[in-house]
Amino acid sequence: MYRSHNCGELNISNVNQKVTLSGWVQKSRDLGAMTFVDLRDRYGITQLAFSEEKNAELNEAAQKLGREFVIQIEGVVIERSSKNKNIATGEVEIEVSELKILNKSELPPFTIEDKTDGGDDIRMKYRYLDIRRNPVRENLMLRHKVSMEVRNYLSNIEFMEVETPYLIKSTPEGARDFIVPSRMNGGEFYALPQSPQTFKQLLMVGGIDRYFQIVKCFRDEDLRADRQPEFTQIDCEMSFVEQDDILNIFEGLTRHLLKKINDVELKEFPRMEYADAMRLYGSDKPDIRFGMEIGELNDVAKNKGFKVFDEQELVAGIAVPGCASYTRKQLDKLIDWVKRPQIGATGLIWAKHNTDGTFKSSVDKFYSQEDVAKWAEITASKPGDLILVMAGGHDKTQKNLGDLRLHMAETLGLRDPKVFAPLWVVDFPLLEWDEDSERFHAMHHPFTSPKAEDMYLMETDPGKVRANAYDLVMNGNEIGGGSIRIHDKSTQESMFTHLGFTKDQAKEQFGFLMDAFEFGAPPHGGIAFGLDRLVAIMGGQEIIRDFIAFPKNNSGRDVMINSPAPVSAEQLNDLSIKLK
Amino acid sequence: MYRSHNCGELNISNVNQKVTLSGWVQKSRDLGAMTFVDLRDRYGITQLAFSEEKNAELNEAAQKLGREFVIQIEGVVIERSSKNKNIATGEVEIEVSELKILNKSELPPFTIEDKTDGGDDIRMKYRYLDIRRNPVRENLMLRHKVSMEVRNYLSNIEFMEVETPYLIKSTPEGARDFIVPSRMNGGEFYALPQSPQTFKQLLMVGGIDRYFQIVKCFRDEDLRADRQPEFTQIDCEMSFVEQDDILNIFEGLTRHLLKKINDVELKEFPRMEYADAMRLYGSDKPDIRFGMEIGELNDVAKNKGFKVFDEQELVAGIAVPGCASYTRKQLDKLIDWVKRPQIGATGLIWAKHNTDGTFKSSVDKFYSQEDVAKWAEITASKPGDLILVMAGGHDKTQKNLGDLRLHMAETLGLRDPKVFAPLWVVDFPLLEWDEDSERFHAMHHPFTSPKAEDMYLMETDPGKVRANAYDLVMNGNEIGGGSIRIHDKSTQESMFTHLGFTKDQAKEQFGFLMDAFEFGAPPHGGIAFGLDRLVAIMGGQEIIRDFIAFPKNNSGRDVMINSPAPVSAEQLNDLSIKLK
Repeated sequence: MYRSHNCGELNISNVNQKVTLSGWVQKSRDLGAMTFVDLRDRYGITQLAFSEEKNAELNEAAQKLGREFVIQIEGVVIERSSKNKNIATGEVEIEVSELKILNKSELPPFTIEDKTDGGDDIRMKYRYLDIRRNPVRENLMLRHKVSMEVRNYLSNIEFMEVETPYLIKSTPEGARDFIVPSRMNGGEFYALPQSPQTFKQLLMVGGIDRYFQIVKCFRDEDLRADRQPEFTQIDCEMSFVEQDDILNIFEGLTRHLLKKINDVELKEFPRMEYADAMRLYGSDKPDIRFGMEIGELNDVAKNKGFKVFDEQELVAGIAVPGCASYTRKQLDKLIDWVKRPQIGATGLIWAKHNTDGTFKSSVDKFYSQEDVAKWAEITASKPGDLILVMAGGHDKTQKNLGDLRLHMAETLGLRDPKVFAPLWVVDFPLLEWDEDSERFHAMHHPFTSPKAEDMYLMETDPGKVRANAYDLVMNGNEIGGGSIRIHDKSTQESMFTHLGFTKDQAKEQFGFLMDAFEFGAPPHGGIAFGLDRLVAIMGGQEIIRDFIAFPKNNSGRDVMINSPAPVSAEQLNDLSIKLK
Repeated sequence: MYRSHNCGELNISNVNQKVTLSGWVQKSRDLGAMTFVDLRDRYGITQLAFSEEKNAELNEAAQKLGREFVIQIEGVVIERSSKNKNIATGEVEIEVSELKILNKSELPPFTIEDKTDGGDDIRMKYRYLDIRRNPVRENLMLRHKVSMEVRNYLSNIEFMEVETPYLIKSTPEGARDFIVPSRMNGGEFYALPQSPQTFKQLLMVGGIDRYFQIVKCFRDEDLRADRQPEFTQIDCEMSFVEQDDILNIFEGLTRHLLKKINDVELKEFPRMEYADAMRLYGSDKPDIRFGMEIGELNDVAKNKGFKVFDEQELVAGIAVPGCASYTRKQLDKLIDWVKRPQIGATGLIWAKHNTDGTFKSSVDKFYSQEDVAKWAEITASKPGDLILVMAGGHDKTQKNLGDLRLHMAETLGLRDPKVFAPLWVVDFPLLEWDEDSERFHAMHHPFTSPKAEDMYLMETDPGKVRANAYDLVMNGNEIGGGSIRIHDKSTQESMFTHLGFTKDQAKEQFGFLMDAFEFGAPPHGGIAFGLDRLVAIMGGQEIIRDFIAFPKNNSGRDVMINSPAPVSAEQLNDLSIKLK
């Protein structure tokens, strides 16, 4: 037996008990005649006491213990003279009578402390040491708890977790697939799933009624910061439901998680149309923890002789609270910020809403106090605020103002990670035009159903057709998205045609699904949550990598195991492939 | 709203309620003036009643409904005149006032009944229809329940579920890997995990202490019957444990599952040494639901003038209960059975233990009544039993008798799927000699620790060294296996040397693990259960395919989606590979 207790559970009630503990040496304080060692395991830290007087040999051995040595001790629990109220075990220590080194340790390449001295790269290479640190372990524990809560909540309302296959078939729609050569079927390949989409729909055709799965998905995309080639989804599907049924169920799940794990009681989630989200927040995933809604100024800012505005599709602005006092330098910095290639604006107009109610703007030449007062009214500016105005193409200007709004909120500390502001964004467009391929792409995916009332636009103005699609947004992040699916063969065929599939391509790639629709497919729909993102936000952070046990870097590389790596010629030969 | 209730919940207490139901037409009985439709969903069947008298148009529409049409109805719950006590809803029916066809159905290629008329191949091609059948859905539901119970049980005793990566690195040890070409790192490959073995050990080095994961694993093996290229493990690992700690914990889990799900109270699991299992049952996964233990007859059967026995390493037999009455024809069939290439024996000696206590054997010429009486004593034969004796090489004869024992039990109906007989098999050999590669292979895997007391044999007689390895066996199937791991670099290095790795190969492939062992690795060990197998046995069956939603066939092919399949030249080009 390696231990009678763990390092987090002994307290004053255990005094005089003989115990055995095992763990890591967190630190050791050598006071000469006395030595104190902090023994750490996953559950906590317990102080070990050694003294020259009681056992000189043991005291000497304790003094030789290095950081992260793995030891086992026996001893008696005694009350501490100087108590530490900050930790659960802080009222006691162990008077050690036996000490055994279970494993030595080299000096770790960074300190195993909450605030470590190790940079990102070294911590990734030695991820197993990084995991010893409380913040990383707590992130993984949070992830475990969220997964357990999700499973129990859904299982209690009749959802069945069904495992779908990982070795499936490559389809050109959507992102790039990872593929897997088949040895037994030379020249053929499996693909790793980008999501279990078609399988969960087949489960609905199979009468499973309520399905969920916490499942790894794979996308071979060029990795932007904080994207992972493998990521985890909470994948769900339901039969005989309309959009509201799904929104209600998964709002319930989200509310349950926040209550149970963060002890936060959420109100009913607002439901916002996609078009409104873009108009008011310049984003399909608005952060509504704060205001600064976008005001459209075309009616009041155009045709006043200011050509920069007159020529543009959209003039719009936001009122940034309390920033009327910005200096010239601060304003110039903002102008530089919007001119960066990531934003790509040509400029930024500002108007200070002074505390005395007057205005001072960068375009005073063209606009009177009354003119600017109208801007203030539309952007809901109050005395002391700073109105920032942009102009340009309609969509681009909305998006730019959305980015600027987030930037200002970040600057002003309005994005409080302890506040949770969820909402549903609904009525997404069905299709979006892709300039590169000069065709429409499915905005959500090709199985999403169009809104019945928009179907008349399908042939004449397909870009205007709205979908029965919805996203769950929290704190400016999409944490889930889904749709009501097409469940009849003819609509699905017509959708593939609109997406530029020939009949043969559609049959080749999705024939099994369209066949399935001929044997009594029920109306169905679903949603998928990004677990990595959800957990990160619940943990008050936005970097998903910190919530993944063994993440990959931005080149898709696991630097700890050094993967990917070359394989043997024999392996390639067996698989009927060779390197180019 | 598609339904107010599901098809399994209405009963006599709902009479006079107005309800909306949706589901599939299971069958329709057209009685002319009356029509009865069985409406089915996942939760049950509810009878719908239509009558010409109340609504002729509706009655006619109901008569036109085909099997598996998806319909929605409104109506009132009424008490049935002729009640069906066999189903929960059998006391009521719905007097339908509105009928809507949600989706038509072609005639399914096989009947959606508990006993279907569809063969294996057609059911696999239309698996989504097969899943509509109760037995298949119940198997998936059982799997879901087992997974939930496992997770909650382990989570309650401080195990954390941690997701390990699926895109890892290929290693030549063990079975063949599935590999995944990397686009971003041209010429390099990921591999899909055969198990999360090294990652879970790194989690122990990382102080996670108790880990589990229900996780997909992948092996590119030539598929024997009922093997799948992707399969699911309940993967577990613990720190600061000895073998008994692990056995106790996971015996507890297994007992909990059988109690909770099968309502079976299991006694303490026997623990049997590998050598004893082979000696008594000719198998490392003995089925102990019945006796027929192997008796070694060398001392009493050799040197009696019967050359066939004299020349062999081992003579041994089993006593088959109640088979003394076997006819010549039955005995010949048994002899043919052992001569099949799968067994490959040269013959079989039999001795009938007559009910009057006398013996009649196929070798009466060489053995007296007293001689055979000794066989009977050693094999625990009783009057009426049939003693079957085989001879040959030691290991081969044990194995053959083990197979014969199972065959006789199967024939006699002794393998009752409702009886659960678990046991631990312990003290496996560390290494096994591989004739092909002329070197030792790790019997479990190269991270398994040798028994300290056998270490002295490591250089002189490595085949004799036993490991701290154990299997959990139930009803003749291995449902779990694990070991106490090596946790120090020098033992691990020496193990790799014994397995024929050069220092460079070991470092190249497992350097990260050996590095990790230098930074304070705790003593640790673990176990992995085969979930597919476990669920099948709990479901009273042995075919794992029936417990997997979308299984592959014996060529590793998913016949429903037709995968694997060729991919485009462009895809291969992007991945820097080409076909051979």
